[in-house]
Amino acid sequence: MDPDEFRRHAHELVDWMADYLDRVSDLPVTPGMVPGDIARRLPSSPPEQGERFEQLFADFQSLVLPGMTHWNHPGWFAYFPGNNSPPSILAEMLTATLGAQCMSWATSPAATELEQVTLDWLRRMLGLPETFVGVIQDTASTATLVALLSARERASGYSAGEHGMADSGKLTVYASAQAHSSVTKGVRLAGYGLDQLRLIPVDAAFAMRPDALAHAVSADLASGFRPACVVATVGTTSSTAVDPLHSISEVCRPHGIWLHVDAAYAGTAAIVPELRHYFDGMEQADSLVLNPHKWMLVNFDCSAYYVRDRDALLRTFQLTPEYLRTEHDDKVVNYRDWGIQLGRRFRALKLWFVIRSYGVEGLRALVRKHVALARELAQWIEATPGFELVAPVPFGLVCFRYCPAGLGEAAIDEINRRLLAQVNQTRRVYLTHTELNGRYVIRLVIGQRQTEREHVQAAWRLVQEAAANLKPRAVG
Amino acid sequence: MDPDEFRRHAHELVDWMADYLDRVSDLPVTPGMVPGDIARRLPSSPPEQGERFEQLFADFQSLVLPGMTHWNHPGWFAYFPGNNSPPSILAEMLTATLGAQCMSWATSPAATELEQVTLDWLRRMLGLPETFVGVIQDTASTATLVALLSARERASGYSAGEHGMADSGKLTVYASAQAHSSVTKGVRLAGYGLDQLRLIPVDAAFAMRPDALAHAVSADLASGFRPACVVATVGTTSSTAVDPLHSISEVCRPHGIWLHVDAAYAGTAAIVPELRHYFDGMEQADSLVLNPHKWMLVNFDCSAYYVRDRDALLRTFQLTPEYLRTEHDDKVVNYRDWGIQLGRRFRALKLWFVIRSYGVEGLRALVRKHVALARELAQWIEATPGFELVAPVPFGLVCFRYCPAGLGEAAIDEINRRLLAQVNQTRRVYLTHTELNGRYVIRLVIGQRQTEREHVQAAWRLVQEAAANLKPRAVG
Repeated sequence: MDPDEFRRHAHELVDWMADYLDRVSDLPVTPGMVPGDIARRLPSSPPEQGERFEQLFADFQSLVLPGMTHWNHPGWFAYFPGNNSPPSILAEMLTATLGAQCMSWATSPAATELEQVTLDWLRRMLGLPETFVGVIQDTASTATLVALLSARERASGYSAGEHGMADSGKLTVYASAQAHSSVTKGVRLAGYGLDQLRLIPVDAAFAMRPDALAHAVSADLASGFRPACVVATVGTTSSTAVDPLHSISEVCRPHGIWLHVDAAYAGTAAIVPELRHYFDGMEQADSLVLNPHKWMLVNFDCSAYYVRDRDALLRTFQLTPEYLRTEHDDKVVNYRDWGIQLGRRFRALKLWFVIRSYGVEGLRALVRKHVALARELAQWIEATPGFELVAPVPFGLVCFRYCPAGLGEAAIDEINRRLLAQVNQTRRVYLTHTELNGRYVIRLVIGQRQTEREHVQAAWRLVQEAAANLKPRAVG
Repeated sequence: MDPDEFRRHAHELVDWMADYLDRVSDLPVTPGMVPGDIARRLPSSPPEQGERFEQLFADFQSLVLPGMTHWNHPGWFAYFPGNNSPPSILAEMLTATLGAQCMSWATSPAATELEQVTLDWLRRMLGLPETFVGVIQDTASTATLVALLSARERASGYSAGEHGMADSGKLTVYASAQAHSSVTKGVRLAGYGLDQLRLIPVDAAFAMRPDALAHAVSADLASGFRPACVVATVGTTSSTAVDPLHSISEVCRPHGIWLHVDAAYAGTAAIVPELRHYFDGMEQADSLVLNPHKWMLVNFDCSAYYVRDRDALLRTFQLTPEYLRTEHDDKVVNYRDWGIQLGRRFRALKLWFVIRSYGVEGLRALVRKHVALARELAQWIEATPGFELVAPVPFGLVCFRYCPAGLGEAAIDEINRRLLAQVNQTRRVYLTHTELNGRYVIRLVIGQRQTEREHVQAAWRLVQEAAANLKPRAVG
């Protein structure tokens, strides 16, 4: 494909892209597919000869697009949001064109310095002290693993990576019973072992109980374990519960335990003054992760990881073979030493474009809109007989269930399963579920750029209609 | 930014992008920057109010672009290549617009099934048996860590992740002394500990000596260690040496040692029949990584990881909390369970576009062109008095040094350092260096889409001119 063909096809794509962003609300939010539907329509072998782009693009539209779930649909209320936005897409176009791999300062000074500056902007927006330095990781799972590895190294006196964990004693990790699965996964991968993960009980609002944490730490110390890391969450996945950072940090400090704050979803809310109190105490953390790709209009992937002890990070990840050595290594940041991967995309550009396009006020306005809508929906639910709000609503997530009078808990679970399936079958909205206190709960999260009051109203109407149509089934 | 503004700006960008791809060869390949040059020109605080895109794009051109290293410049001979191509950029435009996060089949069936189909195409292209299944990882560093973790779990009877490495005995890892730094880093991160990494001596061609490997494994077994993983490399970073996979696999098999093949750069060459012999034995591996983003015209990041024991992979990484459970989990591939990250970009689209646009023959032709150019350059070097070829040239990398008569080794190192600096200071080409047999060596790798014979000739001319201008300095 020569530059002129590229130009022509790229212009065609831009018109399609602009139309798509405009009409995405008219598409079904989820595809009506069963497993294998797409694979069976694709040839099992690659073509020997090149094909025309017209054919590829036609196949994209007829085969791929109908099999996509539209994360930027205003009816997206599932999981947590995965945002994008026009300025972010524009940045991705430039990033792809430059095709730079930004492992070192030398392999693209602008990419490194823009990442430093943009993450320092974000640090100010969040109200984090200057002692924190930032790096973009791909996902919060990776960032949390980075924190667990740094904590492992610091707690073992930097012996685990050097001499192996077999010689490092039993290091323990603490997180609430509501913590994200990436904590469990990270504890496995980092070699602590699940046996050394203490899932701390939560209070009625699903937040970690600092007294229970203190008790677990004391018990472990008494038994010869070495507490290495506490992962506290602001905005848990199931219910956006807020672990009390101040009290937790007070448990950590005397023992030098690494405190990692997982604010993957909710972290963006820290830029809003009236929501900032949920994050009080985060300045006591050793590390923090939040995902601008979740709620700050930046395309996936863009996960901001802040760390206070830069030395602990570097001692865990730094490694400079001769073929990567450059003239300026002692004067620059080489972000390859700040995480797991050597290779790095130029991800700062999209964050820079988004912050500048919307301004901090524009981003605050977005969060405020979503939180206000979520709280309004919560009021509607509370005012509706037969429905029950299951958790507080500090941010954009509303957890609820349908509880028609006279049903037992198992029957309520079953009817909510059917309710969710019916609502999603309309393909006009996409909601997901979780489990809280052992019960099936519907999650509706408001966080998409194009989601307005009318979309939330429509979703709530669909839920009510489905409920009205449901007859409870006998459940054993 | 509303859809019409997006449309307008995106069209402007497309013209810039097409021009850039066309004129990149006229730009200096590297920026003339000192640390801090870019950061000091950026405001230290983010804007409160949004700015116009015109301003952002102007700043991109005046501040960012001059600070970029142009990885797709035909004068790029540094590190290993990081490719992109018009069809890959077009795919990235669509991926960014869809903004889908593809952690599960349900969160985008088309993304999952396209990944399955495209990686099976690539498997056929490489001549890997059907027993291998593939997944796209972000980088080879991650893929190698995934292999080391899977090996750790299998060797420990899936006890390390569960009960911790403190209880799993001393697991050992083997790689050649020329293996990539990501192996060393992975051994640290996975908790084996560097003390348990055996760097196996290499032969005169910098390839792992299987007899030395066998000896190390025997010695460890005799001392009560448990050999878990061998990482063999096809195409090492310093010199593209080829470890003998057949003989290595014979050492691994009797002890059930996981054999991971790092073919990050060279793997693409396996699609070329006359180069396929370098990969003989890879069908005996447990896992393999190659980077289509290095030498197959696909934008970074796209690292193809193949594994034979899918069960070992899943037992290491799978975890399904209630909020991620979906209706089809028992019938589909959920790629979130195939690696470290939960969130995943839709990376199969660019691989699909590239394979279809060029066809397998088109991709083979690219590799053949680069390899032929590298071998031609090697001949020029061998025919030039005062220059020395330092390693065999199986693929696109040529390792050489300038050795004027009468200089000692330290003086030769020093003069090659100065030679490389002088060549790179022209900013018309970008070469890097490494160390082989303890000596400073210049690396020139031919692998960019737009690199032709004239560019290699020009680079070689620059090297010769710089050599002619250099006077040896006194070295202590």
